[in-house]
Amino acid sequence: MFQPPRGTRDLLPEEMIKRQFIVDTARSVFEKWGFDPLDTPAFEEFELLTAKSGQAIKDEIYYFKDKSDRELGLRFDFTVPAARVISSNPNLQRPFRRYQLGPVWRYDRPGAGRYREFWQADIDIFGSSGIDADAEVVACACEALQKMGISNFYVRINNRKIMNAFLGSLNLDATDIMRSIDKLNKIGDEGVREELKSKKVGEKDISSIMKFAKTSSIEKIREFIDDGVKELEQLAVMLKKFNVSVRIDTSLVRGLEYYTGSVFEIMQEGSNLTITAGGRYDNMIEGFGGKSTPAVGISLGVDRLMELVQLDLGKTRVDVYIANVDEKSKEKCVEIAQQLRELGINVECDVMSRPLAKQLEYVNTKGIKFSVVIGEKEMKSGVLKLRNMQSGSEKDIELRNLKRVLDVIRSN
Amino acid sequence: MFQPPRGTRDLLPEEMIKRQFIVDTARSVFEKWGFDPLDTPAFEEFELLTAKSGQAIKDEIYYFKDKSDRELGLRFDFTVPAARVISSNPNLQRPFRRYQLGPVWRYDRPGAGRYREFWQADIDIFGSSGIDADAEVVACACEALQKMGISNFYVRINNRKIMNAFLGSLNLDATDIMRSIDKLNKIGDEGVREELKSKKVGEKDISSIMKFAKTSSIEKIREFIDDGVKELEQLAVMLKKFNVSVRIDTSLVRGLEYYTGSVFEIMQEGSNLTITAGGRYDNMIEGFGGKSTPAVGISLGVDRLMELVQLDLGKTRVDVYIANVDEKSKEKCVEIAQQLRELGINVECDVMSRPLAKQLEYVNTKGIKFSVVIGEKEMKSGVLKLRNMQSGSEKDIELRNLKRVLDVIRSN
Repeated sequence: MFQPPRGTRDLLPEEMIKRQFIVDTARSVFEKWGFDPLDTPAFEEFELLTAKSGQAIKDEIYYFKDKSDRELGLRFDFTVPAARVISSNPNLQRPFRRYQLGPVWRYDRPGAGRYREFWQADIDIFGSSGIDADAEVVACACEALQKMGISNFYVRINNRKIMNAFLGSLNLDATDIMRSIDKLNKIGDEGVREELKSKKVGEKDISSIMKFAKTSSIEKIREFIDDGVKELEQLAVMLKKFNVSVRIDTSLVRGLEYYTGSVFEIMQEGSNLTITAGGRYDNMIEGFGGKSTPAVGISLGVDRLMELVQLDLGKTRVDVYIANVDEKSKEKCVEIAQQLRELGINVECDVMSRPLAKQLEYVNTKGIKFSVVIGEKEMKSGVLKLRNMQSGSEKDIELRNLKRVLDVIRSN
Repeated sequence: MFQPPRGTRDLLPEEMIKRQFIVDTARSVFEKWGFDPLDTPAFEEFELLTAKSGQAIKDEIYYFKDKSDRELGLRFDFTVPAARVISSNPNLQRPFRRYQLGPVWRYDRPGAGRYREFWQADIDIFGSSGIDADAEVVACACEALQKMGISNFYVRINNRKIMNAFLGSLNLDATDIMRSIDKLNKIGDEGVREELKSKKVGEKDISSIMKFAKTSSIEKIREFIDDGVKELEQLAVMLKKFNVSVRIDTSLVRGLEYYTGSVFEIMQEGSNLTITAGGRYDNMIEGFGGKSTPAVGISLGVDRLMELVQLDLGKTRVDVYIANVDEKSKEKCVEIAQQLRELGINVECDVMSRPLAKQLEYVNTKGIKFSVVIGEKEMKSGVLKLRNMQSGSEKDIELRNLKRVLDVIRSN
């Protein structure tokens, strides 16, 4: 029997309803913050995908050739395709504020909650170097989480310029050191010290680095470096105005090498799990041959959000099932179904020619919230009973006043 | 400069807003008819994709190996993945009514309106052999088109059983003949006759076939064959009850070989363009190793619908731009923006530190419908002017009564 390819999964209706809730909520909040939708193809030229990405990501790209021997690869994020769009459309208005929702692919080791096809929800602002843009993407992402019912989170922020300046002053290779510091949450103090030692960093420098990485107040950081501090402070102030719970964390560097300024992570309170992350990358568009364009963005991992969202969203989108008592009442069922659909209600009728008891069994198993039974009695009386399948309560509703069905459904 | 790979395209906001309208409308109508969402991975095992498909489609599959040498391919439709889900999940409730929306890929010759990545919107009912299921998928698709503002269409219907029985009576290979008849609209009467001749079909049989293919009344078809006619008649009657404009057309066979009963196409009136098509395929699930499961479905081509939808949906999702007179009023702008967002309004503020005139130029070029200017005057008076950028008309609105903004936007 065929299964989904390793590392991928099907989403059956119950899970799909959850993902749609997350994606719809993200989209609605993104649009409220003035972001417009953009879409790009699932695959890109392989050369584009590898141009600005480190070896680790290169190894994870699904690579193939089309029938004209073009080298292609499935996109592994939305940042690279968006940067391509910006660099090849120089006439796009600035700022270009776009969101993109959909699947991306990485040939990663699959595991609990880790898939080779996974969904992202990204917002980015292209063309603005103002820290207000940084603050907007973070605050917007926070509102999206809140609208999904997720509230136990805080935002870690840092600025790459600070770390770069500091490491520069020690005469060390910034990129390499940052990779180690980035692991502080995972391998702990001793782990990072060991790794730095193996990278031939001297004891004194290690102490400076560790002391620096654990600094968490604006005052202390200013003692180290001044460049970038202003941006970090500005971001913190702006985020507080947006009521975002923010913590400065100089150990935060983010793995991706293309960040140039602000970096941020939204963390789950308690678990220290990263829910979503992003930063400023002012050099990427130019690197793709476009005109120099500052950029900042954040990316929500939809599959992780599916684990965090706790709301009961139901197993089906069907609101009402209209059961028929016999073949004779079927036509009336279809007629009522059509009237309810006109009102915007999601309705299902029998297409299996099942007896009534079997129809109601189906309603229960499928988790449909309301049912109506139509037979000779209802057709004569012109009154139907709308039954709440969970509570068992019933409401009499006249056929000529079907709008009341909507009221009952909405009040539940 | 990098471009999208050949045969694919980016959707910038204006086009993306159109596609979202189509996809959202389809989804909302599908759900009103009791269909639930399903998603499957973008790629499947190559063996699955080729198991039940003809050579023509096989040649169009984007094929690749993952890093463990698994043979994979990008999906070319939603029917095969859905059939896999059904066959490998025997405990799914019947009927299983699902819709699926998203991109599929075919390595086809690109051309006007033809893309190698294109979107489909599918509904299928699995587990029901009743013609009411056939009628529901067709009527539901028709309502989706109407809700998109498309009304000049009719539905061609036929039933494969009729054609199979007829061709069987002539001792001819049904599949091969049907491929020729399927081209009647494209190559015309003479073209089909020539092609049948080249397939060694006798003159008398060709005449019978051509006469049959042009039959369009229930009465005449019954003279030919009876099996399948009942289903066709039933479908026509049911569709008329759903107010669907329906025409019987015995030349309609549909290229795909897996259809077993009803086949249907929704045609644009006048142009004879196929907008969407589908049919019944009762043998596919069993062919994939699942238990025998009747199935019927229809597929809307979203990219074609993008050409047909004529509504003006705007160039941006932003409703209101809040312009600042100077740096001092920026904070107030953000505050008002947040209040409007709470009301569900899509709002954008400046992040470019632009002077007022430049901000309003941006509003015009981007096509944002409403603007507000905030400066010392507005902060003192507590009254803002909501300007309709198209008509130039302005409405005074008190800051403590921002709900009125919503009324003005909605009434436009």
